[in-house]
Amino acid sequence: MANFIWDSERKHRTGVAEAIFCQGKSASDLQAIVAHNLAEKNPLLMTRLSEKHWLSLSSEIRQQLDYDQISETAIGNFKIIEPMPNDICIVCAGTSDLAVAKEAQRTLLFNGCDAPIVADVGVAGLWRLLDKIEHIQQYKIVIAVAGMEGALFSVLAGLITAPVIAVPTSIGYGISADGQAALSSALSSCAPGVMTVNINNGFGAAVAAIKTIRQFA
Amino acid sequence: MANFIWDSERKHRTGVAEAIFCQGKSASDLQAIVAHNLAEKNPLLMTRLSEKHWLSLSSEIRQQLDYDQISETAIGNFKIIEPMPNDICIVCAGTSDLAVAKEAQRTLLFNGCDAPIVADVGVAGLWRLLDKIEHIQQYKIVIAVAGMEGALFSVLAGLITAPVIAVPTSIGYGISADGQAALSSALSSCAPGVMTVNINNGFGAAVAAIKTIRQFA
Amino acid sequence: MANFIWDSERKHRTGVAEAIFCQGKSASDLQAIVAHNLAEKNPLLMTRLSEKHWLSLSSEIRQQLDYDQISETAIGNFKIIEPMPNDICIVCAGTSDLAVAKEAQRTLLFNGCDAPIVADVGVAGLWRLLDKIEHIQQYKIVIAVAGMEGALFSVLAGLITAPVIAVPTSIGYGISADGQAALSSALSSCAPGVMTVNINNGFGAAVAAIKTIRQFA
Amino acid sequence: MANFIWDSERKHRTGVAEAIFCQGKSASDLQAIVAHNLAEKNPLLMTRLSEKHWLSLSSEIRQQLDYDQISETAIGNFKIIEPMPNDICIVCAGTSDLAVAKEAQRTLLFNGCDAPIVADVGVAGLWRLLDKIEHIQQYKIVIAVAGMEGALFSVLAGLITAPVIAVPTSIGYGISADGQAALSSALSSCAPGVMTVNINNGFGAAVAAIKTIRQFA
Amino acid sequence: MANFIWDSERKHRTGVAEAIFCQGKSASDLQAIVAHNLAEKNPLLMTRLSEKHWLSLSSEIRQQLDYDQISETAIGNFKIIEPMPNDICIVCAGTSDLAVAKEAQRTLLFNGCDAPIVADVGVAGLWRLLDKIEHIQQYKIVIAVAGMEGALFSVLAGLITAPVIAVPTSIGYGISADGQAALSSALSSCAPGVMTVNINNGFGAAVAAIKTIRQFA
Amino acid sequence: MANFIWDSERKHRTGVAEAIFCQGKSASDLQAIVAHNLAEKNPLLMTRLSEKHWLSLSSEIRQQLDYDQISETAIGNFKIIEPMPNDICIVCAGTSDLAVAKEAQRTLLFNGCDAPIVADVGVAGLWRLLDKIEHIQQYKIVIAVAGMEGALFSVLAGLITAPVIAVPTSIGYGISADGQAALSSALSSCAPGVMTVNINNGFGAAVAAIKTIRQFA
Amino acid sequence: MANFIWDSERKHRTGVAEAIFCQGKSASDLQAIVAHNLAEKNPLLMTRLSEKHWLSLSSEIRQQLDYDQISETAIGNFKIIEPMPNDICIVCAGTSDLAVAKEAQRTLLFNGCDAPIVADVGVAGLWRLLDKIEHIQQYKIVIAVAGMEGALFSVLAGLITAPVIAVPTSIGYGISADGQAALSSALSSCAPGVMTVNINNGFGAAVAAIKTIRQFA
Amino acid sequence: MANFIWDSERKHRTGVAEAIFCQGKSASDLQAIVAHNLAEKNPLLMTRLSEKHWLSLSSEIRQQLDYDQISETAIGNFKIIEPMPNDICIVCAGTSDLAVAKEAQRTLLFNGCDAPIVADVGVAGLWRLLDKIEHIQQYKIVIAVAGMEGALFSVLAGLITAPVIAVPTSIGYGISADGQAALSSALSSCAPGVMTVNINNGFGAAVAAIKTIRQFA
Repeated sequence: MANFIWDSERKHRTGVAEAIFCQGKSASDLQAIVAHNLAEKNPLLMTRLSEKHWLSLSSEIRQQLDYDQISETAIGNFKIIEPMPNDICIVCAGTSDLAVAKEAQRTLLFNGCDAPIVADVGVAGLWRLLDKIEHIQQYKIVIAVAGMEGALFSVLAGLITAPVIAVPTSIGYGISADGQAALSSALSSCAPGVMTVNINNGFGAAVAAIKTIRQFA
Repeated sequence: MANFIWDSERKHRTGVAEAIFCQGKSASDLQAIVAHNLAEKNPLLMTRLSEKHWLSLSSEIRQQLDYDQISETAIGNFKIIEPMPNDICIVCAGTSDLAVAKEAQRTLLFNGCDAPIVADVGVAGLWRLLDKIEHIQQYKIVIAVAGMEGALFSVLAGLITAPVIAVPTSIGYGISADGQAALSSALSSCAPGVMTVNINNGFGAAVAAIKTIRQFA
Repeated sequence: MANFIWDSERKHRTGVAEAIFCQGKSASDLQAIVAHNLAEKNPLLMTRLSEKHWLSLSSEIRQQLDYDQISETAIGNFKIIEPMPNDICIVCAGTSDLAVAKEAQRTLLFNGCDAPIVADVGVAGLWRLLDKIEHIQQYKIVIAVAGMEGALFSVLAGLITAPVIAVPTSIGYGISADGQAALSSALSSCAPGVMTVNINNGFGAAVAAIKTIRQFA
Repeated sequence: MANFIWDSERKHRTGVAEAIFCQGKSASDLQAIVAHNLAEKNPLLMTRLSEKHWLSLSSEIRQQLDYDQISETAIGNFKIIEPMPNDICIVCAGTSDLAVAKEAQRTLLFNGCDAPIVADVGVAGLWRLLDKIEHIQQYKIVIAVAGMEGALFSVLAGLITAPVIAVPTSIGYGISADGQAALSSALSSCAPGVMTVNINNGFGAAVAAIKTIRQFA
Repeated sequence: MANFIWDSERKHRTGVAEAIFCQGKSASDLQAIVAHNLAEKNPLLMTRLSEKHWLSLSSEIRQQLDYDQISETAIGNFKIIEPMPNDICIVCAGTSDLAVAKEAQRTLLFNGCDAPIVADVGVAGLWRLLDKIEHIQQYKIVIAVAGMEGALFSVLAGLITAPVIAVPTSIGYGISADGQAALSSALSSCAPGVMTVNINNGFGAAVAAIKTIRQFA
Repeated sequence: MANFIWDSERKHRTGVAEAIFCQGKSASDLQAIVAHNLAEKNPLLMTRLSEKHWLSLSSEIRQQLDYDQISETAIGNFKIIEPMPNDICIVCAGTSDLAVAKEAQRTLLFNGCDAPIVADVGVAGLWRLLDKIEHIQQYKIVIAVAGMEGALFSVLAGLITAPVIAVPTSIGYGISADGQAALSSALSSCAPGVMTVNINNGFGAAVAAIKTIRQFA
Repeated sequence: MANFIWDSERKHRTGVAEAIFCQGKSASDLQAIVAHNLAEKNPLLMTRLSEKHWLSLSSEIRQQLDYDQISETAIGNFKIIEPMPNDICIVCAGTSDLAVAKEAQRTLLFNGCDAPIVADVGVAGLWRLLDKIEHIQQYKIVIAVAGMEGALFSVLAGLITAPVIAVPTSIGYGISADGQAALSSALSSCAPGVMTVNINNGFGAAVAAIKTIRQFA
Repeated sequence: MANFIWDSERKHRTGVAEAIFCQGKSASDLQAIVAHNLAEKNPLLMTRLSEKHWLSLSSEIRQQLDYDQISETAIGNFKIIEPMPNDICIVCAGTSDLAVAKEAQRTLLFNGCDAPIVADVGVAGLWRLLDKIEHIQQYKIVIAVAGMEGALFSVLAGLITAPVIAVPTSIGYGISADGQAALSSALSSCAPGVMTVNINNGFGAAVAAIKTIRQFA
């Protein structure tokens, strides 16, 4: 079908390569889209690719892709076209938030940026965060990943000069089961300089960071 | 009407004197309730008493009451029956949250406890909170008052051994206009030991603190 | 990874030992965290540990843990360091709320406090609660666990001098399917002295109770 | 306009006379509707008639109506056509809920039923309710009016054989500011036999009670 | 455990026998409760008993119960103690709402009332409802069961003299997926005389109808 | 400012003239926009023009406009360019919904279509609607305006062959105070053929009807 | 049962044949309804027919139906009674929205209209939409299908003269997981002429389009 | 009081000067804070300063401040310490959104950046946006301000390489009355590279942009 053609113009207009959002796509549509792009040697980033969805792809295709089960992402035809300065740091509140943090990390890698994850620095143990704050201060953009009450976003933004891109996660239960509590915290932060993306949207935070870095490269 | 009789049994059963919640009461009902209690020499705490409501009371009655416009509370026939240890501290994120903090402070005072307010220690300026944390650590129960994203609750609970009674406030706008964001933060706190009362409920937090202190006095 | 190091400082700063919130953690991360702590002889409380998650742990590790399927908690290296007075009582509205009540009970036990559960005293059968109210009145702090409309919180708070820590549960359906109705009841209680934790958060209620008791021990 | 004709068929089909819901009607439309009905000698019940709206009516019309400011209702051409047994009792949690209770009471009166209001029996002071429960048990239908957490509905339904028609009110603040908390409590009541009408809908509860009584008269 | 004792007092105080709400109960607790009541020859109504839950009961117990998979109810030791007049009719909007309608029907049966279901009379085909309206008008109380937009409640209440007990169902998708749209319709009905119970609460509607009928028997 | 230039291209591209949404515009901006268009002899429709906003315009400008206080609309330089067949009918549930119905009517008039309002045909009195249904059936498109529970939308769509454009209104209180209940009803209608616009959006419904009629003229 | 009779009057009154909404129906009820209609040679459209539900039908019945797994629809006894002009176009934002688009397409086909799907024209790549806009402009009614933020609805409505029937889909995650974000966008569109149906309601959009076309045929 | 001391450390730690959020502050507190800062010659930005609040300040103080009524901001002791490159552009959907756009513009100015507002380029008239897109493409960061359905955010992000900081506004009514619809659109944007701040938070967007620019200056 015509709609499987790779959109080479997108990269040109927006500065980032297109990714394939897999959720909700039928197995046959997904197979066709991936096969086309592999054949065309297009660099390929797939997000929201559940393990079940992944296994529905032919084994021939799976062999050409690097799949990460935690972040539910796959990368194909990887090549760094525009190496980027490693100016981005990912800060992650708890171990349970790592899946989202890794989606961001893999998206950054796909776009040529090798970003570290500083993990398990939730504000309940403030001293852990303070121990690492000097390290974090060296980066120009910080992606912060947190669920539950998302207090990390405000605390972090009050301690560093870099802008904070907040990624609320759906880690939690009860009132915070769906990430709405963390999202509200990010949006209402009393510390200016916090920007927010959708719940669990590690991909979006990474792309926003890349678009920003490229403006000044 | 029969329902204006002072409930002396309440103090006996629950350990705290009854207060009059003024919102929604008609001017004539409120006048009758207050007049009755003043005549009976009952100690009297009125909450949610808007200035308009206050002015609807007869001047004779107003002269017997101590009204505070900021917290919208009035106290009458004040006498300390059971002096309490000053074990409670009120911590307040921003100047805009002071109305709620003062409702708590006046309720504590009415019940015999003189509690300080540590103000303007929101987490956006973490060092201000850290400067005062040793002082706060001396109290046995901490009432924390914060609006917007309510990150103060988690940060505080991670730094002290006292339990934290969180009072979310409706200070904010957009996603945090009604206090729901701060409430969600208090409830989903990643720092255990945080208990929550209703939005803007300084009165309730104070009563809970008093009931707790009296258990161990 | 560095983030698996046991946070011994936490116990020192907040007065309670850290627990491991298992939800959302990958099987391999969880295995590593538990193995590390068992090797270090750290007392270990795991919460939100689903049976599937539990079975993903190695049998060697499972043999060192005491797992309770109802409350989805596991305890390892249990030893009472600071025996606590048995001042806490858990009151539970219905049999369906027992999973949450037991999470609170096991958390208290882990911290040295042996607390009874007074079960099946929902307000629909008020006489059952009234029959047991004298027993409940002997405790200094009451944890109340209820789903559906959560009327127990207000009724209880009107009958005892102890503060009530309300734990709304997600037991119910339709408008109360997710615990929001019970949570709203707890927060809007007309009976002052009710404090609330997140829906189904038996753990948090227990920790708040412990922190309070320790302040006065 | 044709739409101002009195709907005499309605009384025939549904067993209750039509009332005029005034909110949102323009002053001129309202004036025309009322004038028409007064001229036709139709019994007339007006609800949600704010004082401002009331004063917009001509003085000639106002003289023919009995207006109650608290409940915002007006009655004209009152005559009891079908006297009803006084089988209905209104139970009201707090003084602030009286406006809604009176809307129910006036609607019952308009339909020929003289119902008492048992006021200020909120569950925070359970003994007050228990003192009056024998009196309440004499009625065949009970309308219960309560705001905040609405625990009265469940407690009452567990103590009497009559069905309970719950009227949640918007009395409260924060999480219960709009009556949603009390409504949720009514709907999720663990005590079967509770039926609910809209928030502040004293009129609707009264009509439902009348329709029920008339079925068995 | 003490909480498994049958509450014989309940029947006395509220006029209806207690039912067992099965959702959320552990298999062992449920087994114990049912075994106890069967041994005591207590009449037994179980609701929200999923097929999986049902199969977890011992086969010995299952043989003594009459289980209905559609309505997820089971009845044991059935005997009509107080035969009731058949004054109640259940009206059901669509075939998909039958599970809830049958929960009401079985609850009525358990309490001695044999009520018909008038099915598939949703307002999209108004003539179907009008064809049956004379039949429906013969009953003294009508339980109306509808999902989606719940227009049936208002239309029905405008056509009959009986009070309408509305049971919103969760049949629908998108904006009406959880029954909230139908619930809102029931509560905001422009036709007075509609009372509402929780979403999918066929049991509650039946009990309310029974309590009403018994008041006048 | 450049952004006050009349967008003549819009009429060409979308088939309808642009209207000025007045809410939120500053008085000076609004004055400038209107003055410009009057000077240019552009036909002018202003919506959401509150009386206060209207009075902030200069009297010179007000004299050139036809203002309707009920619908809060003003029309200037009116001339029918493309006369349209009178194929559209507006059906309105209650007198309180007339403001929204008139916004639709005035928008249709501005675009050359003279549409009647069939008022006060809410489903609580179904016979009123049935009396007028033959008249309504003569139109090719029906705009239905209703608040509260919005049952009119479904009932109407089941009785006519014309598509129904539903306009939920904010008439109501409690659960239906903001029009959400009526909106949900429109969207979840069990009667296919109902399309919906935003709450109180009489303007939008009229424009959609015009665009449709013009496609077939 | 009486309620399985085919409603031949419906086609007459509303202009569209009835469809069977399968969600929530028991397997035995569904089997009976379908068997009856097949035997009667009624044209048959089944929607929300999940694969599991489909497989629960007898193989004899399945052989007489054309099932489409993507759109979860089945068609039986297909015959075009009233051929319709092909005036309708379906525009679809992303590949993930195709299931809903196809539900619309199959419903149109069942009613005699062969409508194309213009796919993968989401606004993130605006040039793709602009490339196809001339083609889309040839149709008299446009059904637009989009999830996530649903910006397609407004952009499209600003570029064509045809009315837009918006079908929000539940494609997305976090804040847009349930289609509410796309629905809100459709309803608040700044481009007049957008009408909306329920989330994922491809069927409803198709029926509304057919009813419209038939009015002018 | 101690909490009025200017926080000079803040500028040092986060790279932006502190602003005074005026909403909710008492008149006397606000007066004191401003007087102190003016006396100390601190640069002063006040936000959410309503006209009523502004007039409550002493005339002496008002003479030292530059107040803008539209954006409800005041600036005092203005001096550019760090001139910034003019790399930021503000894009605004409608005239009604200008208040928020100007809050952003004044905040940028206060921090040394002179940013233009490109106004009235909502997507309903896509050609207006396309006419100005080349101009917009010259900036390194774009702040986009839009209410209603907020489609501007996605369309813009698909057309430029700069990151987009979305500011949803509360312009709208019905479903979009509070800005939630625009906020949801921003968060769920199908065009990656969109970051969001709270509803109406022009200040926050400006600060985030400044923090970003300063990282690369």
